[in-house]
Amino acid sequence: MSDYSQHIVSRIKNTDKSAIREILKVAQNPEIISLAGGLPAPETFPTKILSSLCQEAIDSYGDIILQYGITEGFLPFRRALVPLLQKRGFFVDTDLEIAADNVCISSGAQGAIDAAAKVLLDEGDIVAVESPTYLGSIKTFKSYGADFISIPMDDHGIIPQELENILKNHKVKVIYLIPTFQNPTGRTLSLKRRKEVAKIVKKYQALIIEDDPYFELRYTGENIVPIKTLAPENVIYIGSLSKVFSPGVRLGYYIAPAILADLMTSVRQGVDVHANSLSQAIAARYIISGKLEKQLKKTLKLYRSKLAVLLGSLDEHFPKNFHHSKPEGGMFVWVEGPEGFDSKKLYLDAIQKKVAFVPGTPFFTDASQGLNTFRLNFTTLTEEKIKLGISRIAELL
Amino acid sequence: MSDYSQHIVSRIKNTDKSAIREILKVAQNPEIISLAGGLPAPETFPTKILSSLCQEAIDSYGDIILQYGITEGFLPFRRALVPLLQKRGFFVDTDLEIAADNVCISSGAQGAIDAAAKVLLDEGDIVAVESPTYLGSIKTFKSYGADFISIPMDDHGIIPQELENILKNHKVKVIYLIPTFQNPTGRTLSLKRRKEVAKIVKKYQALIIEDDPYFELRYTGENIVPIKTLAPENVIYIGSLSKVFSPGVRLGYYIAPAILADLMTSVRQGVDVHANSLSQAIAARYIISGKLEKQLKKTLKLYRSKLAVLLGSLDEHFPKNFHHSKPEGGMFVWVEGPEGFDSKKLYLDAIQKKVAFVPGTPFFTDASQGLNTFRLNFTTLTEEKIKLGISRIAELL
Repeated sequence: MSDYSQHIVSRIKNTDKSAIREILKVAQNPEIISLAGGLPAPETFPTKILSSLCQEAIDSYGDIILQYGITEGFLPFRRALVPLLQKRGFFVDTDLEIAADNVCISSGAQGAIDAAAKVLLDEGDIVAVESPTYLGSIKTFKSYGADFISIPMDDHGIIPQELENILKNHKVKVIYLIPTFQNPTGRTLSLKRRKEVAKIVKKYQALIIEDDPYFELRYTGENIVPIKTLAPENVIYIGSLSKVFSPGVRLGYYIAPAILADLMTSVRQGVDVHANSLSQAIAARYIISGKLEKQLKKTLKLYRSKLAVLLGSLDEHFPKNFHHSKPEGGMFVWVEGPEGFDSKKLYLDAIQKKVAFVPGTPFFTDASQGLNTFRLNFTTLTEEKIKLGISRIAELL
Repeated sequence: MSDYSQHIVSRIKNTDKSAIREILKVAQNPEIISLAGGLPAPETFPTKILSSLCQEAIDSYGDIILQYGITEGFLPFRRALVPLLQKRGFFVDTDLEIAADNVCISSGAQGAIDAAAKVLLDEGDIVAVESPTYLGSIKTFKSYGADFISIPMDDHGIIPQELENILKNHKVKVIYLIPTFQNPTGRTLSLKRRKEVAKIVKKYQALIIEDDPYFELRYTGENIVPIKTLAPENVIYIGSLSKVFSPGVRLGYYIAPAILADLMTSVRQGVDVHANSLSQAIAARYIISGKLEKQLKKTLKLYRSKLAVLLGSLDEHFPKNFHHSKPEGGMFVWVEGPEGFDSKKLYLDAIQKKVAFVPGTPFFTDASQGLNTFRLNFTTLTEEKIKLGISRIAELL
């Protein structure tokens, strides 16, 4: 038997190999200055205290952290997340136990996106997405057969009137947004627009998946409340510990309207039963001990400085007809060249000069868009390398 | 917004709350002797050495175990699994690196079942399953809209001729089997029948998902090779560390024909990106240090004795018109009463007597079947409690 075409479903056959993966493979060459990645800096991980956190977890919770757990998540971890979420405007004046019951744990934010998609998307359903948007989620939505419609953006995120037009004229099943320090653009939806978006989704009984992995990575400016706090019944809110603790432990969380949270739990019983309990217990100790907060301060300092260097280098070296986003946090900066500029060609030239980035096209659901754009990441590079990398790209422009 | 019915897909709306979950909730009452569960005994977990395994993992692999990893799994862990799999007849005379490349890691065996289902199942597709079978997988298959057809079994597993008739008369997309110490029956498909099944699936170009989480839990008798070794191109083989290491860490693995393995990796990028690396690294150290093998010997001794007590008690106390399976391993024994016997009624009476088990009906895809059957588990109970529990049930019969 060598032909499996009768067995493989059509919605999967059409899944391409990720273009970005191929780029990241090239960029792994240690000789190349890679602004292409999207990884947190390893020095932000609690590597040195990990085994003592592990022992603390066993001392606190016992062997239950190695046993099957409930799909909703390990309760001490869910409790530990509540104060973090209260800082974002959730669960104000809510009893801790009730709040913890409303936070569910998934295998990374990706696990929550998958569960939401599984509950909400049938073949041919339409997902409205920021244009450009995060590829991992596009992949998830496609795996359920979804189609896409793009919501136009500017420097302040999606344009609410454009969203309203889309909802008026199309049967949109769900809206997928990364309102804060978006991947790939680094853009943040302003508070004014969040309020407008909340009003619009209420009016149209529309549902948002709000993907918010970068909330805590704010280096300057003031926090902006999640859309979920402005339209609680219309939003599935998804967070992650990947950027502030460790991506390798695969821990995400979500707050959803009760009916949807129940269904997401139900489908997750068939997907992974539950997120790994050992990591949940270690994360709980990391938060409760105050060590995550302490590390986060160091992480913000580290990234603040790197982002400043990147933005400074762009201002200094890039031609004036190249526009770049000016994020106050997150992991990415987005560059838009003039019409006719070809970022794929630039990429090939840049590789010759031992510097890499991600051309923008793959981030658009319509592959004809974004040829003049590219994404830059700064989290794992030294400031020297950032400067050098940007000046090398600038020489090519 | 309070009505989400326009948003929720129909294949999910129809998912019932798991009947077994409700039963297990009742059985959690510490006053009740619960033969209803399906958990490994916590004393088989490496709780005491866990933080030292964690430190060993950091010393051996560094902070890479906290970073994003590849979807296929953490290579040292995949390498560590190879010798275990060679004992089952896989990768004989295969280079270690090539063998490791062919083992992929998932978030529990459930994660592999979900990935296989996602690649293979569209709404209305037919899955042929043992009757009765494992509920978690049924849940997964249903979440992709699958329908079911039951393969009749006897004490030696599915009847090959029945499988052939089904393949001849129906368009079966995939066959789902747990050939060794099956959940819920404890039955094992004989080698003779495995060979017949291998021949049949080759003849009909049919595809099997072979779910094999209990392989190592053999207390007496000789190992029987997986069907995968007899029909490599027709089988996706799935294993688990849940029964021999820890279910809480959610580690499973799979070996699939290359085309299907690639697609499973691709869909898993959208489901959870990868299984948690920290646990993979700890598991690798647990295996490589020889400590898993040492613990497994103790585990087998513990369970061997408990199973013998359970089977002895059934022989001693149960009426002669009740038939039970005689497994040589695994975690479950299956009881079949005479026609007209109602295990749901018995369950309600048993709860009054402070003893619990799982009535058989939920394990059948056709809910009208199995009323005269029930499942017993023995792994977490003391031998005294097993005896007492069985004698209490016997009094009710």
